[in-house]
Amino acid sequence: MSLVVQKYGGSSLADAESIKRVAHRIVETKKAGSDVCVVVSAMGDTTDDLLDLAEQVSPVPPPREMDMLLTAGERMSMALVAMAIADLGHSVRSFTGSQAGVITDAAHGKAKIIDVTPGRITEALGKKHIVIVAGFQGVSQGTKEITTLGRGGSDTTAVALAAALEADVCEIYTDVDGIFTADPRIVSTAHKIDRISHDEMLEMAASGAKILHLRCVEYARRFNMPIHVRSSFSSKEGTWVLPPDPEGAEDMEEPIIAGVAHDNSEAKITVVGVPDQPGRAGQIFTTVAEAQVNIDMIVQNVSEADTGLTDISFTLPMTDGQTAVEALMRTKDEVGFESIQYDDQIGKLSLVGAGMRTNPGVSATFFRALAEAGVNIEMISTSEIRISVVTRADQLDDALRALHTAFGLDSADGEAIVYGGTGR
Amino acid sequence: MSLVVQKYGGSSLADAESIKRVAHRIVETKKAGSDVCVVVSAMGDTTDDLLDLAEQVSPVPPPREMDMLLTAGERMSMALVAMAIADLGHSVRSFTGSQAGVITDAAHGKAKIIDVTPGRITEALGKKHIVIVAGFQGVSQGTKEITTLGRGGSDTTAVALAAALEADVCEIYTDVDGIFTADPRIVSTAHKIDRISHDEMLEMAASGAKILHLRCVEYARRFNMPIHVRSSFSSKEGTWVLPPDPEGAEDMEEPIIAGVAHDNSEAKITVVGVPDQPGRAGQIFTTVAEAQVNIDMIVQNVSEADTGLTDISFTLPMTDGQTAVEALMRTKDEVGFESIQYDDQIGKLSLVGAGMRTNPGVSATFFRALAEAGVNIEMISTSEIRISVVTRADQLDDALRALHTAFGLDSADGEAIVYGGTGR
Repeated sequence: MSLVVQKYGGSSLADAESIKRVAHRIVETKKAGSDVCVVVSAMGDTTDDLLDLAEQVSPVPPPREMDMLLTAGERMSMALVAMAIADLGHSVRSFTGSQAGVITDAAHGKAKIIDVTPGRITEALGKKHIVIVAGFQGVSQGTKEITTLGRGGSDTTAVALAAALEADVCEIYTDVDGIFTADPRIVSTAHKIDRISHDEMLEMAASGAKILHLRCVEYARRFNMPIHVRSSFSSKEGTWVLPPDPEGAEDMEEPIIAGVAHDNSEAKITVVGVPDQPGRAGQIFTTVAEAQVNIDMIVQNVSEADTGLTDISFTLPMTDGQTAVEALMRTKDEVGFESIQYDDQIGKLSLVGAGMRTNPGVSATFFRALAEAGVNIEMISTSEIRISVVTRADQLDDALRALHTAFGLDSADGEAIVYGGTGR
Repeated sequence: MSLVVQKYGGSSLADAESIKRVAHRIVETKKAGSDVCVVVSAMGDTTDDLLDLAEQVSPVPPPREMDMLLTAGERMSMALVAMAIADLGHSVRSFTGSQAGVITDAAHGKAKIIDVTPGRITEALGKKHIVIVAGFQGVSQGTKEITTLGRGGSDTTAVALAAALEADVCEIYTDVDGIFTADPRIVSTAHKIDRISHDEMLEMAASGAKILHLRCVEYARRFNMPIHVRSSFSSKEGTWVLPPDPEGAEDMEEPIIAGVAHDNSEAKITVVGVPDQPGRAGQIFTTVAEAQVNIDMIVQNVSEADTGLTDISFTLPMTDGQTAVEALMRTKDEVGFESIQYDDQIGKLSLVGAGMRTNPGVSATFFRALAEAGVNIEMISTSEIRISVVTRADQLDDALRALHTAFGLDSADGEAIVYGGTGR
């Protein structure tokens, strides 16, 4: 008997009608012969409504109590989905994160899953019940406090449960048809990707592709769990996120490039006139890290020979901009830099594809395409299967379209350009 | 160190402002030097909203899932109350019914508390935290399913926790000033009762007084737990519901009569022409019991000598009327009765007072007052400390006022008529 884990997000559970539609789809999967374990998010705006209520009561609520409050959201949606399934004549049991054995650390609001002990789920599946589990939540090891997993938490719950239950696939239902070669709102020729590797998806998610959260992809990659990202509004196949071919075979038909991701939520900070002495960069990044700010790309200019000063630039989430600038300014005298420039008019774009490993021509095509589109590049970073650059924000859309075309992603039948190499 | 258990109902927790006001009152109790454990209901209309949602999804939702859904209500209110207390600078921990050790049987929707193991509460109180507990909910013994306690569940949770924690008092906060000698909406001269015994309160609650639920009073009586019923909108003393005086002393100042309760939610069924043979009444009441209908008063007429037939009347909750009539009609041939009369135009009123035990004049005054007010009596039942009668519904208010006056309850200073006996 195969086992399918499905996850439905808040937009698929907006109201009673949506819940009934989701129930029908779950029952169809069961009828097709699979055991089904379903992870649900809170309905539509529930989480925002609860956050509003909390804000009215206290400007800085204790994280423990915030988790108590927010976990009510998935509790409601899981019970309602279970009721809708029962109404279709199928036996069903819902479980909270704690009951499902989602064991986390004690970091309220951003807990990490450290173990999954799904004894009650296995037992319920064994009795042929359809199982519904509240996503986004768990219980802390030892202290048994209710925790929430933070952003991407429900997707991560689904993948973690799928791994623990040794499911055949983890289906993530969303309001789009799958992962696209680029954001279709910007690149009109973007098309759905049929298959993508965990590695590539990881780079896409890290580079701004919003459909799957980085954390969930990391988890799936670690456990070799196939993810099928698809629409809850149609029965079409979506995008399969798959482990590498077990035989290591390279498929000539696979495109070298999976897609182009972009991110316009970052800002750039440049620390100007830093004495070019060992340890100064360390001081700067320690200061930023202590302010709980994650940085992304870093560039250090060659220092000017006459002054012995250099500039250090890095990107960070725009929402952390003020925090980082204030933290740095407090260390100005100690570090000895001249000034700070803050710039939130930047965009980041990333080309992702496992074929880069074996195709030296990719970066040449990449930079030529941007140059021909008149796009100026401010920062560059690369991994084995990704090239990212920072541009002016108002050049980002043009840059995306130029790359999408240059790498043959415009053709919807997936016939992307294949370089001289072996494909991937 | 004294320990106070407080309970706040949904009307005291209607919105963020109400929650903040409740938080202030809790903190005041803590500042006055007591440890505080607070039981909360769901906010205002939350439970009704959740029931609406459930109805939209399924006409007959599984009770297990209904309990999952409804328990989200108290979860939200307890977290919000905790946040408001934290905002006032006091350390606080909230606990679900399950976390608080409220162990119940497995009857979803109407579970009974079978044990309270408040280890986490005791530990949190020991660390000087204010403790907030979700009322109305528990976890089933063995199967560890989430349950709700049904009507009166939050009051019962509060009393059960107070007993398990050996609290000094259980304060029940509500939107009125306490227990009144009669419903002030009907009897304008009704006044607040300062002290009432558990026994008397039990009879009042069983007779229709709505402020405290029967179940909660039964629990308090069993554990000799004092209850203080008071308003969450003022700091005035309310009504103390107290165990009997430990020394058995009788207090001359106590009124003989505690108050007059009424109930207009009952209907009367008369089974006409029942053969007056052993076992027929048993068949009738077994049928009604098997339909899960609780009956209240019963009257069997003397059988007519010429026909050998008798009539049996009983009262029951109006909401169960149709169920009971249908169940009885299915046994018509078997039992051999002639017909069924259903009457929902009745009212029940009850005079309650421990002084009745030693004051033989009470029933004479009772029936004289009703006769002088022109009230016709259809059924009578009595206990040691209560007289109840059924009247026409449209005579109920007049009857209430007549009794309230006849027993000297109109004077707000509590100088009730004292009969020849010793008081109580």
